[in-house]
Amino acid sequence: MTLSKKPYKGCRDFFPKEMRERNYLFEAMKTTAESFAYEPFDGPMVEEVELYKAKSGEELINEQIYEFTDRGNRHVAIRPEMTPTVARMVAQIAKQASKPIRWYSIPNLMRYEKPQRGRLREHWQFNVDIFGAPENLGEIEVLSVVSQLLESFGATKEMFGIQLNDRKIVDYIFNEIIAVDSEISYRLYKIIDKSKKVDRQALEKMTSEVLTEKSKQDAFYEYLELDSFEKVTNYLKGHNYPRISEFEAFVSKLSNSQASEFVEYDPAIVRGLDYYTGVVFEVFDKHPDNKRAIAGGGAYANLLQIFNEPALPGIGFGMGDVTLKDFLISHDLMPKMDHAINDVFLTYLTGDGEAMAMSMAKQLRMKGLKVETHLGVMKFKKLFKTAEGKGHRNVALIGEDEVKNNTITVKNMVERKQETFDAQDIESITNFLKQG
Amino acid sequence: MTLSKKPYKGCRDFFPKEMRERNYLFEAMKTTAESFAYEPFDGPMVEEVELYKAKSGEELINEQIYEFTDRGNRHVAIRPEMTPTVARMVAQIAKQASKPIRWYSIPNLMRYEKPQRGRLREHWQFNVDIFGAPENLGEIEVLSVVSQLLESFGATKEMFGIQLNDRKIVDYIFNEIIAVDSEISYRLYKIIDKSKKVDRQALEKMTSEVLTEKSKQDAFYEYLELDSFEKVTNYLKGHNYPRISEFEAFVSKLSNSQASEFVEYDPAIVRGLDYYTGVVFEVFDKHPDNKRAIAGGGAYANLLQIFNEPALPGIGFGMGDVTLKDFLISHDLMPKMDHAINDVFLTYLTGDGEAMAMSMAKQLRMKGLKVETHLGVMKFKKLFKTAEGKGHRNVALIGEDEVKNNTITVKNMVERKQETFDAQDIESITNFLKQG
Repeated sequence: MTLSKKPYKGCRDFFPKEMRERNYLFEAMKTTAESFAYEPFDGPMVEEVELYKAKSGEELINEQIYEFTDRGNRHVAIRPEMTPTVARMVAQIAKQASKPIRWYSIPNLMRYEKPQRGRLREHWQFNVDIFGAPENLGEIEVLSVVSQLLESFGATKEMFGIQLNDRKIVDYIFNEIIAVDSEISYRLYKIIDKSKKVDRQALEKMTSEVLTEKSKQDAFYEYLELDSFEKVTNYLKGHNYPRISEFEAFVSKLSNSQASEFVEYDPAIVRGLDYYTGVVFEVFDKHPDNKRAIAGGGAYANLLQIFNEPALPGIGFGMGDVTLKDFLISHDLMPKMDHAINDVFLTYLTGDGEAMAMSMAKQLRMKGLKVETHLGVMKFKKLFKTAEGKGHRNVALIGEDEVKNNTITVKNMVERKQETFDAQDIESITNFLKQG
Repeated sequence: MTLSKKPYKGCRDFFPKEMRERNYLFEAMKTTAESFAYEPFDGPMVEEVELYKAKSGEELINEQIYEFTDRGNRHVAIRPEMTPTVARMVAQIAKQASKPIRWYSIPNLMRYEKPQRGRLREHWQFNVDIFGAPENLGEIEVLSVVSQLLESFGATKEMFGIQLNDRKIVDYIFNEIIAVDSEISYRLYKIIDKSKKVDRQALEKMTSEVLTEKSKQDAFYEYLELDSFEKVTNYLKGHNYPRISEFEAFVSKLSNSQASEFVEYDPAIVRGLDYYTGVVFEVFDKHPDNKRAIAGGGAYANLLQIFNEPALPGIGFGMGDVTLKDFLISHDLMPKMDHAINDVFLTYLTGDGEAMAMSMAKQLRMKGLKVETHLGVMKFKKLFKTAEGKGHRNVALIGEDEVKNNTITVKNMVERKQETFDAQDIESITNFLKQG
C-alpha cells in the first residue's frame, strides 16, 4: 500500500520556509503582548465538551467541533477556540491573583470547516485577554495591543481599520427604542451579522420577516445608518440613553489612545451570539482582495459564572495566523524568508581535518554562532557553489596546510575578504564571522 | 450546572510561571538546533490513522492512540509521535532537496497513558532529524545536538549519559552467533527492553521461555555483559562481524566528537520494535530519583518506502518536555521564573495625567521596553508596594507637577535612584530604564 504524502484535509505542513514565516508572525505577537506586560499561558489541546457547550456558539458546537469519546468514556473535543480555556484557568486563580490579569497565548485550534481562502481546519490564533480591568481602560488597552501589533509589521491606517460597537447600546436600542422582546432582538442580531454580506433588498426582506411594523423597520434602518461615533452619540443623547456619560468617557479616552486613528464606530458589528456583553470589535483589511476580518474580540462580563465563581469582567481578542498572513501579503508586508540565515559553512578538504573541524564547530556554537558542518570531505571546487546555494555568507575551510599549521581559513563571500587564523584563536574567528 | 476548573486528565494548564519555564526549555532547544543549522518545521495536530499504522509500534496504535472518525468519515488520530509526520513531509521534497536535510520541531503530542511521574497524556517533544547524511557522521551530529542541549542548561557528565547500541550488531549476534530465527529474535528484543527493570532471576525465567538450549542462553547472557565499546569490539572481532571496520570507524569518529565524553556502549538499549535499523540510543539521568530516559532516538533506513519513495536514511531523536524538566529540577538546573520581567510600571496620580501616560507608554513600547500601565489613577502611597509585588524594578509616575511641567519622574527601586525627565526626551528615559 502506498500512503498519501499530503496532510489531513484543511491542515498545513510547515516546511522550513513556512515555519520561518510562522515564527516571524509569532515573534511579533509575543513581543507586542509583552511590551504591554501581558504574560504567556497555554492550556491543553483537548477539553471536555461540556466546557464548549456552556459558552461557545451553537454553530460551532453542532457543526464545527472535533469531538469524540476517549477510551475512558469521557466526551472530549479538540479546542476550537481558546476563550473557554482561558476562562477555566482564570477561574482557578481569580480570587488570589492581583488584578488586572493580563494574558496571551498562541494556540493551535481546530474547526471542521470547508477549506477556503482564510479558513482552514487547523489554524493558530493569537489570543489576548485582560481580566478585572477598570471599564473603558481595559477595552482601550486591548485595542492598542492589536493596532500596535499590525503597526509593528509596517501596516498603516490606509491598510486596516477597527470597527467597533457596544452591545449595551445595541440592546438599549432594540429593547427600549425599537421596543422588541428578547426573541426578536436575537433575530435582529442575526440579521446584523449578515447585513454586510447582502444587498439592501435582501436586508429589507430579512427585516420584514422579523419586524412587521413599518415604524420598527424604519427605526432598525435608522440604527444601521449610525456609522460614526458622532452620529451614534447624538442619536443616543436624543433617546435618553442612561449610560451616555460612560460612553462619552470611553470615546474621549479612546481618542487619546494609540488605537485612536484606527477605530471607527460601526453599527453592523455585533459579533454574533457569542459571550460578549459590552464593546465588540473587528479588525478589517482595507485591501479589496482580502475581505475577511483579521481579528475580532470584545468585552464579556460573565464568563466565570459557569465555574461558580464571582463575575470578573474580561476583554479579549483573537487573531488567526491565516488571515494575518493574507493581510500582510496583500499589502506586501511579508518579508522573504526562503533561506535560513546561518553564520558559517564549515568544511574540511582532507580526512585529517575532520577532528579539527568537529572541535572548531563546537567552540563556535558555544559562542552563539550557527554553524553548518559539511559532513565528510569537501571537494574544493564544489565548495563555494554549495555554500552559496545554501545561503551562507561565510565559508571556513581546513585544508592540508591548515591541518599542518593548526589554522583555519575563513572567507566572507559577500565582501570577498579572506583571512587565516590560528585555530586556537576562537575570539578572532568569531569576530570575523559575526561581522560577516 | 457547575463546570470543572481542572484540565482534562493527564494534561497540563500552563499558567504564566509554567509557561515561562516551558519557553525557557523551548528557547534552548531552538538555539541549540539552529547552532547546528537545523531548520524548524511543523505538521498538523491530526493525521490519518493509516500513517501511524504503517510505522508506529503496536502498543501505541492499540492502546495509546487518540483516534476518531471525522464528520467526513475519515479515520484520523491526534499525533502521538512526530516521526511519521516528518517522514511524510520529507517524502514530498526528498527528490529535489539538497542533502543532508536537517530539521527540528517541538510539537505537542498526545498518548492515552495512565498519568504518572514523567508520563502525561499531552506532552511536547523536541524532535531533531537528519536525512541523507553520510553514515556515522549523521549519527555523531545528532548525538552532539542532544549533548550540547543538556550542556547548555549546565548539565555535566556527572548528571547524564548516553547509552548507545547498534541494531545491526544485535541482529548479527542474534541471527549468526546465537543463531535464532526472526520470531525468536523478536522475542529476545522484547526481553532486552525489559532487562533493566527486572532482576537476574526474572531475566533467566523470561530467557528460558524463549531459548531452550543452554548454550544459546549462555550466548545471550554473554552478549548482555558487553558493556563497553572495547568489550563489544573485541567480541565482534572474535566472531568475524563483517561490518567491524565501519563500527570501528564510528567509534573512532565518535571519540573525536563533542558527544564523546557522554556516550557509552550498552547492550540493553534496543529501542523496542520501532523503525530503527542501525544506531539506537537513550539519554539517561544519573540522578537516582529520576530514572526515566530523557530522550531516545536512532537511525532508520526505510521510513520513506511507505510513500513509495526511494530509501533515504535518517537519524533522529525525541526529547519530552516533562522528562527534561524533571531532569533539570533533579539537578537544580531550573532557574526560578516566578515573575515576569518587565521594564517599568507606568502610573499617573491624577486624571489629567492619563493621556500623557498613554502617549508615553506607546513611545516606550516602540523602543522595545516592556511597559505595564496602571489602569486608572494610582494612589501614591500604594505605588511602590504594588510595583514591588509585581516584580518591577522601575516605576514611572506622572503627578500634578509632572502634568504641569510636561515631565515624568522615574525611579529605579533596586538602585534607589530617581530622576525627572522632560516628557519629550524619550531617548534619556529609555536609557535610564534599560540601565535599571
